[in-house]
Amino acid sequence: MVKVAVDMMGGDDAPAIVLEAVERAVNDFSDLEIILFGDKSQYTLDHPRIDFRHCEEQITMEDEPVRAIKRKKDSSMVRAAEAVKNGEADSCVSAGNTGALMSAGLFIVGRIKGVVRPALVVTLPTISGKGFVFMDVGANADAKAEHLLQYAQLGNVYAQKLRGIKEPSVGLLNIGTEPAKGNALTKKAYQLMAAQNDFNFAGNVEAKALMQDASDVVVTDGYTGNMILKNLEGTAKSIGKMLKTTLLRGMKNKVAALLIRRDLTMLMAKMDYAEYGGSVLLGLDGIVVKAHGSSNAKAFYSAIRQAKIASEEKVVETMKETVGES
Amino acid sequence: MVKVAVDMMGGDDAPAIVLEAVERAVNDFSDLEIILFGDKSQYTLDHPRIDFRHCEEQITMEDEPVRAIKRKKDSSMVRAAEAVKNGEADSCVSAGNTGALMSAGLFIVGRIKGVVRPALVVTLPTISGKGFVFMDVGANADAKAEHLLQYAQLGNVYAQKLRGIKEPSVGLLNIGTEPAKGNALTKKAYQLMAAQNDFNFAGNVEAKALMQDASDVVVTDGYTGNMILKNLEGTAKSIGKMLKTTLLRGMKNKVAALLIRRDLTMLMAKMDYAEYGGSVLLGLDGIVVKAHGSSNAKAFYSAIRQAKIASEEKVVETMKETVGES
Repeated sequence: MVKVAVDMMGGDDAPAIVLEAVERAVNDFSDLEIILFGDKSQYTLDHPRIDFRHCEEQITMEDEPVRAIKRKKDSSMVRAAEAVKNGEADSCVSAGNTGALMSAGLFIVGRIKGVVRPALVVTLPTISGKGFVFMDVGANADAKAEHLLQYAQLGNVYAQKLRGIKEPSVGLLNIGTEPAKGNALTKKAYQLMAAQNDFNFAGNVEAKALMQDASDVVVTDGYTGNMILKNLEGTAKSIGKMLKTTLLRGMKNKVAALLIRRDLTMLMAKMDYAEYGGSVLLGLDGIVVKAHGSSNAKAFYSAIRQAKIASEEKVVETMKETVGES
Repeated sequence: MVKVAVDMMGGDDAPAIVLEAVERAVNDFSDLEIILFGDKSQYTLDHPRIDFRHCEEQITMEDEPVRAIKRKKDSSMVRAAEAVKNGEADSCVSAGNTGALMSAGLFIVGRIKGVVRPALVVTLPTISGKGFVFMDVGANADAKAEHLLQYAQLGNVYAQKLRGIKEPSVGLLNIGTEPAKGNALTKKAYQLMAAQNDFNFAGNVEAKALMQDASDVVVTDGYTGNMILKNLEGTAKSIGKMLKTTLLRGMKNKVAALLIRRDLTMLMAKMDYAEYGGSVLLGLDGIVVKAHGSSNAKAFYSAIRQAKIASEEKVVETMKETVGES
């Protein structure tokens, strides 16, 4: 039995989409137990494998992260993180305030001993549909080369366990493929990565090659990673918008639009990284999954499934053995 | 009369597309004179306002930039830059090795006194078709906050003179819109920009808002800027590729493709930043325009036109007065 703690109150469409996702997950997986934290007046389910716990508070998107975690002790997010810390749950999932969830991960769940900086990891789409693991997308804006090396080690384990890739290729995001390219940070990180034997270093990866299966794992600092994530999202959305305008211009285009509508919707869905599950704060002594704030029930369900797999595959234990200090 | 020095030998399809662009430019603009540097055996034009000069050497894409500039003294690129330095030409254009052209700008043309670091600027597309000025896209991978402030000052003049915007809004690329967001660099740069009165500071701009006319000028360090530039390019190309695959799948889609082909081509062209002209190395004591390496004749023509306007609008003189030290 895998136990996942779920924050019922976080995200734009909570608790409705969370309840829908939780219901589907317990029905689909007979070995899954959910500990659900939220407001009892909004709890509508009844299932033997859902352990509901009422909370008086909730953390909003406007809350200042660290303060919210320290003060709102009876919030659904804090209590879900505490369930991981005290061993009641194997992992937790929330679609709430990202900063607050990262703080809950750092201050409540805590780091693996030896991990200097946890990193936020996402799986992003590629043209082939295979996708790649990308990190850090914003846990630490200012990183050192040693941090990037550790991200690579964590990402390597994550790709093995969550994506089933035996020997993942791990690349360094950079502004050129040659070893001497980049800024001071990436030049130094390249040297550290080239000198180790823990993972299969694929060298520098350029931002233009990201969607073309350049590498199974791509590592960067949190400032650049967050920037790229938002740029991918924004560019895809902008092109989608332009495409829509084009398809509604004139009778001829409207006919074409009718013919390809279904395929185009599928294409745009392929670009939507929420479909690939949530983001995970790696390097913690427990699994903390952040579902996208604008998650629908399907995306939240993917995040629960991701938490379940990470627990089953003993991602944390493997990271302790390979990256941590005993 | 405006005199533009042109490197006939640089770029993937040189000299053919260069010759085509030069011919069109001298025909279109009766006040334009071209000093054309290249291999005489490949020179095919004959026009009273084209002053052809034979060069024995050329700089290739494989050449190490600084060494190439120092050693290949009789290359078309070096001689075009020298024509700007010695006052024969008002500006120069090349589609060759970017690093070498930047080195030629720095070491031959030279910086404006008081400009600490020149920056490479491009105009990028937005959904509305208006576009925005983006810099630095790779002149300096490691920038300090003071450099970003100066980029903003240079970009402000560029947008006024080249894009005809009277009071451009100048934004700082960042991973959040709030003043306290970002890494150490952008946090400090925000403070410097907020404290000055030389330009209209629009605050932080997120990467996802770039294509939505977030700001007339957007400033970042060369590492991030180059990354974003390549990411925009790669994402647009990848989506275009996926779209093409979709449109060729099945009879129904092929019919739709026939109906919207022309409009889709126009849409993808809108995303192609080469259409907006070349990139310019700002902060130099002369105008150096880099046409995209894969330029077609139209893009190279745009780059010549851009060099001509920059010369006419006295961009360098204005930058000397506003940013430089006398």
